[in-house]
Amino acid sequence: MSRITALDTYDVRFPTSRELDGSDAMNPDPDYSAAYVVMRTDQPDMAGYALAFTIGRGNDVQKAAIDALHHHVVGLDVDDVIDDLGGFARRLIGDSQLRWLGPEKGVMHMAIGAVINAAWDLAARMAGKPVWRFIAEMTPEQLVATIDFRYLTDALTPGEALTMLHAAVPGKLRRISQLLAEGYPAYTTSPGWLGYSDEKMQRLAREAVSAGFRTIKLKVGMNIEDDVRRCRLARKTVGPDIAIAVDANQRWDVPDAISWLRHLAGVQLAWVEEPTSPDDILGHAAIRRAVTPVPISTGEHTHNRVMFKQLFQANAVDLVQIDAARVGGVNENLAILLLAAKYGVRVFPHAGGVGLCELVQHLAMADFVAISGKKDDRAIEFVDHLHQHFVDPVIVSNGCYIAPDAPGFSAQMHTHSVERYRYPEGPAWHEPADMARAS
Amino acid sequence: MSRITALDTYDVRFPTSRELDGSDAMNPDPDYSAAYVVMRTDQPDMAGYALAFTIGRGNDVQKAAIDALHHHVVGLDVDDVIDDLGGFARRLIGDSQLRWLGPEKGVMHMAIGAVINAAWDLAARMAGKPVWRFIAEMTPEQLVATIDFRYLTDALTPGEALTMLHAAVPGKLRRISQLLAEGYPAYTTSPGWLGYSDEKMQRLAREAVSAGFRTIKLKVGMNIEDDVRRCRLARKTVGPDIAIAVDANQRWDVPDAISWLRHLAGVQLAWVEEPTSPDDILGHAAIRRAVTPVPISTGEHTHNRVMFKQLFQANAVDLVQIDAARVGGVNENLAILLLAAKYGVRVFPHAGGVGLCELVQHLAMADFVAISGKKDDRAIEFVDHLHQHFVDPVIVSNGCYIAPDAPGFSAQMHTHSVERYRYPEGPAWHEPADMARAS
Repeated sequence: MSRITALDTYDVRFPTSRELDGSDAMNPDPDYSAAYVVMRTDQPDMAGYALAFTIGRGNDVQKAAIDALHHHVVGLDVDDVIDDLGGFARRLIGDSQLRWLGPEKGVMHMAIGAVINAAWDLAARMAGKPVWRFIAEMTPEQLVATIDFRYLTDALTPGEALTMLHAAVPGKLRRISQLLAEGYPAYTTSPGWLGYSDEKMQRLAREAVSAGFRTIKLKVGMNIEDDVRRCRLARKTVGPDIAIAVDANQRWDVPDAISWLRHLAGVQLAWVEEPTSPDDILGHAAIRRAVTPVPISTGEHTHNRVMFKQLFQANAVDLVQIDAARVGGVNENLAILLLAAKYGVRVFPHAGGVGLCELVQHLAMADFVAISGKKDDRAIEFVDHLHQHFVDPVIVSNGCYIAPDAPGFSAQMHTHSVERYRYPEGPAWHEPADMARAS
Repeated sequence: MSRITALDTYDVRFPTSRELDGSDAMNPDPDYSAAYVVMRTDQPDMAGYALAFTIGRGNDVQKAAIDALHHHVVGLDVDDVIDDLGGFARRLIGDSQLRWLGPEKGVMHMAIGAVINAAWDLAARMAGKPVWRFIAEMTPEQLVATIDFRYLTDALTPGEALTMLHAAVPGKLRRISQLLAEGYPAYTTSPGWLGYSDEKMQRLAREAVSAGFRTIKLKVGMNIEDDVRRCRLARKTVGPDIAIAVDANQRWDVPDAISWLRHLAGVQLAWVEEPTSPDDILGHAAIRRAVTPVPISTGEHTHNRVMFKQLFQANAVDLVQIDAARVGGVNENLAILLLAAKYGVRVFPHAGGVGLCELVQHLAMADFVAISGKKDDRAIEFVDHLHQHFVDPVIVSNGCYIAPDAPGFSAQMHTHSVERYRYPEGPAWHEPADMARAS
């Protein structure tokens, strides 16, 4: 019998703001950061790794929230956790006193999500499988048992979910082979950060197309003339066959979004992401009606399954981003993927941040194999930085994520990276900017 | 010139779970708690006081979130803050890195709300007025300048808000006199906690009616037979002229809420509060349509103005609770009160918690004087415990809140209370249960 002996947390921050990587209309100077969690067991070589992603200030608050879950985790029998990942998640989310701090949103929910993801990492490692395969090889009954259907049953019942999952069983082995052979489509935001010059954007866009990407994304929302110019330049640069998406990062009110998007109508857009507040379900629906057929999207800040449910019920979106570190862990993302499949909404996972590519690829691949059965009408975001800090970094080749083979959730960081970027005491925060960048 | 010299925070918890005060279907054992904040200035006798309310575990996370705002506050010129409470709030809410932790929801937003409320307390103290009067005596232009209309302009523009406020100006002096003479209606939840026996509930209900309350509220949602029995008993006890509301504290899925409320149809209900997830705007609308004319309500967990806006746009509620410590401070509650007035939705402020009665009375009274002009079709929740810990506790007489006269927001706690109930080091947490209760 093995026990969980510690829930260690680390405030890890990367000084990305120094190069304007990740800059957009609402986030001018992010320092990509992780409240990194290690769920240790009494076996020295067996632990669960995960993280909550933040963009700098407040990463200490996020760490404190994970620390507040210590008493729910330390001392548990490892088998009790990994054999009932649904029960484990429900006990964390159901803590009646902590629930007041959300419920199921913001700092506390992200903390709970990180701990749940660490448990999935541990479970997959003990099974010797990457998380995508660990999920994909569950029976429909096992998978449904991990999901909390509270507040969902007017849109999706456990019985409906079972029926959907059973219908996907026959093609599973074929799709696993297909995934291993082809990978999963990626798209890239690397050319599109607002802080970049036109020249840098064009160069990176050309490089993206050469590297095999079929979709690129540009940040918009600071200045309408700039946006129109940059979108036209990008279209000229990549030609008519590459999809161009834009991301406003919640910059607009509903009327502003409608008028701004009418200005952008000349550029054929693959989707418009986060046109307004992520909480504004009816606002997204109104924007979508007004600018049809421009596809509307949101999700990286959508805080739980109840919000996704309503986006679908209100016909507010054409596609959604999911985020591996925003909601209540794998379990809640499985609920969201099932809802998306039921409502026929495509999923383009969000991954602009440290460790998010590593985590979310598993969810997209599990969705393809076991839930929606689709991958070629969708893509996972890819941003090519900070992967060197991970023990099992993502591999993107010819515009596709290669299915990971190593056991777990790919979120384990190198010990030397954690030590070097710990905030505020890590050496990277105490040396000249150019040295911190170079390492 | 005076400066803000410190933002001190305290983790204060009261062992209310020992008597099941505050117990409901989702919160079986709350320890009413405050992440208490004191915004100190270089004048020893002048500070701003406020709190974020929690129900126990996680109060330390809430305190850490307030501490993370230190750099936005300490060192500021007091006049710059109190002369531009809108700008002060926008800078806190607009911190692009902290914004990732919400945006505008959960732990971080409640922390920001507490700091904003401390600034209003400070401003009102320096003006020598209680906060309700400080707001009520602002010009329409001054009041509108405190509000962030971002994400609201499809429902309410600054111009519309100005028109509404100007229309309310002529009656202000009369309404101030009326408020001072009559007080503001209160309702009581004291009889209705789920942990109470039928006998205790009936005794407290009789006492509530004798004390002048015209509305009582019962918690429901654990067991339908119990709920029907308790509601009928309560109706028999108080007679046909006293309003009875029920509160399910988010217990139900949408289909459950509809079937449960059909069982309760025999009892004439003043409202049904929190039938389902506070995030489920479309769910509330569906429940309301299905059980019409039973009035539906939510709000104590509604995390910001964007969610309230949609509740109104979707015709999802007949009335709302507002909470002084959930959203982004006075400024955001003013936006919510203006939206409620525009959409003709009655407001019954939430106050079940420590310090919430003290704070929210000011918002309701300001609404009556300066915004909606109404008070006799609404009421503020009143729970009669823990008031002894406040320097200017609420006074409720003959079923009405008496308008406070002391300068500020009424949230300052006695120093000896803070010291005694600080967690975990305060003496109340280290002595036998009966002694901690008695004090």
